[in-house]
Amino acid sequence: MSSRLTSLLALLVLVAATPATAHEAPQPEGRARLRDLGITVGVLPTGKWNAITDVPGVKVGHVTLVSGHGKLVPGQGPVRTGVTAIIPRDDVWHKKVFAGGVVLNGNGQMSALDWIREAGWLETPILLCDTLSVGRVTDAAISWHAKQNPAMGITDDVVLPCVAECDDSFLNDQRGRHVKEHHVFQALDGAKSGPVDEGAVGAGTGMVSYRFKGGIGTASRKLPAAAGGWTVGVLVNANLGWREHLRIDGIPVGEEIKDLMPERKPSEGSCIMIIATDAPLLPNQLERVARRATLGLARTGTIAAHSSGDFALAFSTAAEVPHDPESGTMAITALNNAAISPLFAATVEATEEAFGNALTMATTTVGRDGHKVYALPLDRLKAIMKARGGSK
Amino acid sequence: MSSRLTSLLALLVLVAATPATAHEAPQPEGRARLRDLGITVGVLPTGKWNAITDVPGVKVGHVTLVSGHGKLVPGQGPVRTGVTAIIPRDDVWHKKVFAGGVVLNGNGQMSALDWIREAGWLETPILLCDTLSVGRVTDAAISWHAKQNPAMGITDDVVLPCVAECDDSFLNDQRGRHVKEHHVFQALDGAKSGPVDEGAVGAGTGMVSYRFKGGIGTASRKLPAAAGGWTVGVLVNANLGWREHLRIDGIPVGEEIKDLMPERKPSEGSCIMIIATDAPLLPNQLERVARRATLGLARTGTIAAHSSGDFALAFSTAAEVPHDPESGTMAITALNNAAISPLFAATVEATEEAFGNALTMATTTVGRDGHKVYALPLDRLKAIMKARGGSK
Amino acid sequence: MSSRLTSLLALLVLVAATPATAHEAPQPEGRARLRDLGITVGVLPTGKWNAITDVPGVKVGHVTLVSGHGKLVPGQGPVRTGVTAIIPRDDVWHKKVFAGGVVLNGNGQMSALDWIREAGWLETPILLCDTLSVGRVTDAAISWHAKQNPAMGITDDVVLPCVAECDDSFLNDQRGRHVKEHHVFQALDGAKSGPVDEGAVGAGTGMVSYRFKGGIGTASRKLPAAAGGWTVGVLVNANLGWREHLRIDGIPVGEEIKDLMPERKPSEGSCIMIIATDAPLLPNQLERVARRATLGLARTGTIAAHSSGDFALAFSTAAEVPHDPESGTMAITALNNAAISPLFAATVEATEEAFGNALTMATTTVGRDGHKVYALPLDRLKAIMKARGGSK
Amino acid sequence: MSSRLTSLLALLVLVAATPATAHEAPQPEGRARLRDLGITVGVLPTGKWNAITDVPGVKVGHVTLVSGHGKLVPGQGPVRTGVTAIIPRDDVWHKKVFAGGVVLNGNGQMSALDWIREAGWLETPILLCDTLSVGRVTDAAISWHAKQNPAMGITDDVVLPCVAECDDSFLNDQRGRHVKEHHVFQALDGAKSGPVDEGAVGAGTGMVSYRFKGGIGTASRKLPAAAGGWTVGVLVNANLGWREHLRIDGIPVGEEIKDLMPERKPSEGSCIMIIATDAPLLPNQLERVARRATLGLARTGTIAAHSSGDFALAFSTAAEVPHDPESGTMAITALNNAAISPLFAATVEATEEAFGNALTMATTTVGRDGHKVYALPLDRLKAIMKARGGSK
Repeated sequence: MSSRLTSLLALLVLVAATPATAHEAPQPEGRARLRDLGITVGVLPTGKWNAITDVPGVKVGHVTLVSGHGKLVPGQGPVRTGVTAIIPRDDVWHKKVFAGGVVLNGNGQMSALDWIREAGWLETPILLCDTLSVGRVTDAAISWHAKQNPAMGITDDVVLPCVAECDDSFLNDQRGRHVKEHHVFQALDGAKSGPVDEGAVGAGTGMVSYRFKGGIGTASRKLPAAAGGWTVGVLVNANLGWREHLRIDGIPVGEEIKDLMPERKPSEGSCIMIIATDAPLLPNQLERVARRATLGLARTGTIAAHSSGDFALAFSTAAEVPHDPESGTMAITALNNAAISPLFAATVEATEEAFGNALTMATTTVGRDGHKVYALPLDRLKAIMKARGGSK
Repeated sequence: MSSRLTSLLALLVLVAATPATAHEAPQPEGRARLRDLGITVGVLPTGKWNAITDVPGVKVGHVTLVSGHGKLVPGQGPVRTGVTAIIPRDDVWHKKVFAGGVVLNGNGQMSALDWIREAGWLETPILLCDTLSVGRVTDAAISWHAKQNPAMGITDDVVLPCVAECDDSFLNDQRGRHVKEHHVFQALDGAKSGPVDEGAVGAGTGMVSYRFKGGIGTASRKLPAAAGGWTVGVLVNANLGWREHLRIDGIPVGEEIKDLMPERKPSEGSCIMIIATDAPLLPNQLERVARRATLGLARTGTIAAHSSGDFALAFSTAAEVPHDPESGTMAITALNNAAISPLFAATVEATEEAFGNALTMATTTVGRDGHKVYALPLDRLKAIMKARGGSK
Repeated sequence: MSSRLTSLLALLVLVAATPATAHEAPQPEGRARLRDLGITVGVLPTGKWNAITDVPGVKVGHVTLVSGHGKLVPGQGPVRTGVTAIIPRDDVWHKKVFAGGVVLNGNGQMSALDWIREAGWLETPILLCDTLSVGRVTDAAISWHAKQNPAMGITDDVVLPCVAECDDSFLNDQRGRHVKEHHVFQALDGAKSGPVDEGAVGAGTGMVSYRFKGGIGTASRKLPAAAGGWTVGVLVNANLGWREHLRIDGIPVGEEIKDLMPERKPSEGSCIMIIATDAPLLPNQLERVARRATLGLARTGTIAAHSSGDFALAFSTAAEVPHDPESGTMAITALNNAAISPLFAATVEATEEAFGNALTMATTTVGRDGHKVYALPLDRLKAIMKARGGSK
Repeated sequence: MSSRLTSLLALLVLVAATPATAHEAPQPEGRARLRDLGITVGVLPTGKWNAITDVPGVKVGHVTLVSGHGKLVPGQGPVRTGVTAIIPRDDVWHKKVFAGGVVLNGNGQMSALDWIREAGWLETPILLCDTLSVGRVTDAAISWHAKQNPAMGITDDVVLPCVAECDDSFLNDQRGRHVKEHHVFQALDGAKSGPVDEGAVGAGTGMVSYRFKGGIGTASRKLPAAAGGWTVGVLVNANLGWREHLRIDGIPVGEEIKDLMPERKPSEGSCIMIIATDAPLLPNQLERVARRATLGLARTGTIAAHSSGDFALAFSTAAEVPHDPESGTMAITALNNAAISPLFAATVEATEEAFGNALTMATTTVGRDGHKVYALPLDRLKAIMKARGGSK
């Protein structure tokens, strides 16, 4: 590219990254987001909430299920799980969003991904849950869609819900499959814009990441007007990684905190990455953006181990693709590839930061059989970052 | 390839294709398989049953659900659906099979496909069902695996079942999701080797193909000893195609039978293709074989329309991949690529024939709201093939 | 899809397919195109020339190199090769076309395919040649682009030419690499719209297909106005297939003509398929179209043997993607997926017919070491089609 | 994975990473490798040379072309380019290596990649060069193979060389295409095991990475015996990245060295990553390993910008796949997936370190039109790493 647009890219390095200032979701006691700890990933400014919901129309809903203590009794508990819904926009069935996705390591499932890749669009909310609940959450999503659309499977199409899982069996009675249909409805119907709860909430309730407590994290970036002014928001469910690999903003934090390990090693988990943008990207460009989320993930240190199910899905709210078009064509706006690299940068940065937020917002959790997973200790993190110059 | 092995390929053209002679599954009244009609696809000989079960260890189980007549009352019926289980071998969880798959058109779902592509293996039975039952069948499969493996999700891995769907909403009360957990158990536990029921059975009960009644079909090929002696078996669930495109053994049968059309046009369906072999293929080679099934499908005339969910999955029973290996490596046998083309030929032929069998074995079906889908009329088929020289 | 647009599809079956009537390229003596033989593939009407050039702006140029007889002397001859250029539109570097491609079997090369898949566009002509000439043809293409664009590699981008090869070593002194820079320039500069020479011309000069003489073939389809009125044109370089697999319009012609075989069996070849359209398809949709060309190819009977390099590349002339855009976005028209299936049908039909044309237009060729490859005998073809009812 | 083998993984964290001690290639004056600067990436020990050549049988050859100064005169110079050959093993045509590759961003070319992905093997050396030399280097490689194999294209197969390019037009008269056939022969015939020259050598001569001088870098890892004892070696040609993104061992070095920028911004480049191992990996597993190289790359900070051509290719020297097998099958050893994660870790670490070596070994270069690209200043790097605690 030797385009006039390359000059836009130069602008990006001039941008002073600024901490988010908006009111945020209530923080778990003693926890904070990366930026509140003085840790600023990358150079681009965030959106208002520094969350996937900074992309207009995107909503997130969590249902968190915590009950019971002590010895695992399959079917009874203890329960440390939940479900998270990401709604690309209201009535996405009739106003589909362009979308694209990639698999970094396929030891997991993001159902509907083949359909998304084929059609180039996403037509349902995205649901995150634990591995063994995939069947029930899928079935609940079908019920929810059937409620919305009485013609479904009668005179209209049938739906293929998008459900992505991570394994929370170290903390949760996963065999009990405690996410029920009404939980899924509640996550979908209660989804909202604005601040997003992070850490051990929703599908993140039972997650373990870098042997610390993981879960839901989110972050966003807003490009300068000269680079299009587009917003990129990322939400992750962080459930992967070996301790010694953990890096926060590049600093090898995992090498410095070798204690606070779970007594028994949880199996390698997974990571789901959802990227939303209002930039007018075509399906193939969204696949490119999704691939960049894996670069942001890599910065946190993971090797994408064999047992990890690492999926990234990106969608754009710019075009409204009709479910039942009145004509064969539609007029749309498309981003020129010459202007896409800033969106790649935004995706990498926001993904890395969302991961960090998942760790710094998650709280120490004791689950089934007394399995204990520690939260990343923020005082030690701050000390390391200070000593290592990680805070800018 | 200018290999010594190419001489093996030459042998294939000398082989006289012979009709299957084994006792087969009871045929629906008035229906017959292609070979019984004198129609012989390709040049390679079949296995004993001319079925996927010709690959030793492979089992198939169907549960067929038919009840009610007349007007659709969602949740009550009429019911024209079912579930089909293909078991690669007993205890495939602990003795995994190498596998590979491809997506021809992704308007559908074959769950676990990303995992299969990543690991190179299949570790569960394959379940076929209708689209809206995917959630329930997945959940039932999880229950079934949990029964088999009490450690699952506790001290052992969690399972990602392989469930592949087709849309049967033209005939079936699909919203009712009538496939229940015990049906899935019954299909899995009742699966057996030997002859395989075809047509409107199991997951094929509500299928429509080329506007005729479709459903389950199977066929196999056995290579001559000089080409390795390997068996390839294919099972399809045929639910796609426009009438005018239908070709049987190349003859454009669909152009000649323009009547016997459903009153209302069913939506474009899908096609699931499962390929089994005992040839010692590596995962990447199995992906190549799976892609050849799409060539066999193409011979039947389909264009893989936008709304079609066409997936192919191939597995090999040659290697036993341990679930919990005692050492880091295993000794295996691998097929040389120089010897793979005959397996491609076998796959193309068997897939084309399996499709034909699905059509010639399926029976006229009246489903919800009186929707009627005619069976391909065998007398007319025979007449066309005779006139067009299609029978060899 | 239960769209209003599905009714458009119904129109397609009502269309009476009509032979092309335009004046065509001069036919090799005694050779004819499929339609001139009364063989009509599919149901859709052709464009004016029944050629890829029916898509406005597309040009084709051939340079055919034939010299010498008898024993192969590497570097001297005999020469039976050439080069073919397909120009998507004039100055495609500055006005790129959206594009997408697939690999059916990767024993070959279509250079720039990864770049095309990444960017979603094609920015150069496509060049077809023999395998060992790929380096020289690539280098010549670079020279040609450098002539067009004095800034290339200085203040502008560097070019990645798109060169696709097939192996013609059975007939040609391929080691001699007889395609020189000026031949490539000549093919590019001499490319023109209108009728396209077929058979043993250009890159098709030394091709062998189904053990008959193969080479260049082309065909097109024009959708009815109600389905968009779009044109799809296909050009193939046919160099693959076992005799016994050959089907023409479904009829197993290869099983009936077992003589006229080359004395020594040529190695399995390859097939390059180029699909042009003026339909406003997005890159991911063009990949879907390219995949349908493999279905058209499959109808001719091939199994895509191990040694075959089968690549399909589709482009759309609808959008003009600027090389050096003045703004970050562009306004484009996009086809709704609901209207794409007729384009799939057109692609499948045109690809199958282009293959047939390659065979019926190619002439018996004697090459290096006296290797003789027979043309498909048209009288026998006509007799078989008549007996088998293949002619409609 | 809850395998016995997971305990092997735990061993890895106990391993004390040790600097390489072997005699190395002569270092450019004032330059040093990362480890000689006290910077140790990751936790795994290196092989003897900390180079791709630590995998037995692997050889590397460079030809470096530097001539002329001042104003660019296309065709004359200045010349700042070269060619690098990586030989997987001697006579790899007859004793192929299993291989797999991935594309991170396809704005570039790695020819033969589709063939490698199809066959699962690599059968030629790998050649690295500048973008516009791809044609000539490919042609030279064909000549070289033809010399080795007099039957090629006559009674044996034709070759598809593997040539991967990066754009060096900021420093080099790339339009002049100065890499000639004899240079390619020299790189191939002169390739050797042992220490590998790094930085501005071979194909790395004209490379720019993170706006510093880039080029060739290499590193290796050797797993402990308990984890298999396998070696992984990586060689990169580093030509990508924005300054502000550069991280060395996690430390954001690029944010701290904002000067020493080229006067004119070079276009975004590319990165080629070659991974060798003696671990007995199957083709699909090698693709997984190649994907991990992109994670190592990501750790250096890149976003894989639109204009970057980022390709990774992995091969294993464990199996010898015969060119012309005497039987249809071969006995091989395969790694269990349960043991693969340590190889992923080794790949990520070695790729990250190879990148660092490319930067710390490259020397300030003035090229065409006086374009000057500075070497990463080692004193400042050391100071930053010391201040930031980057050195362990």
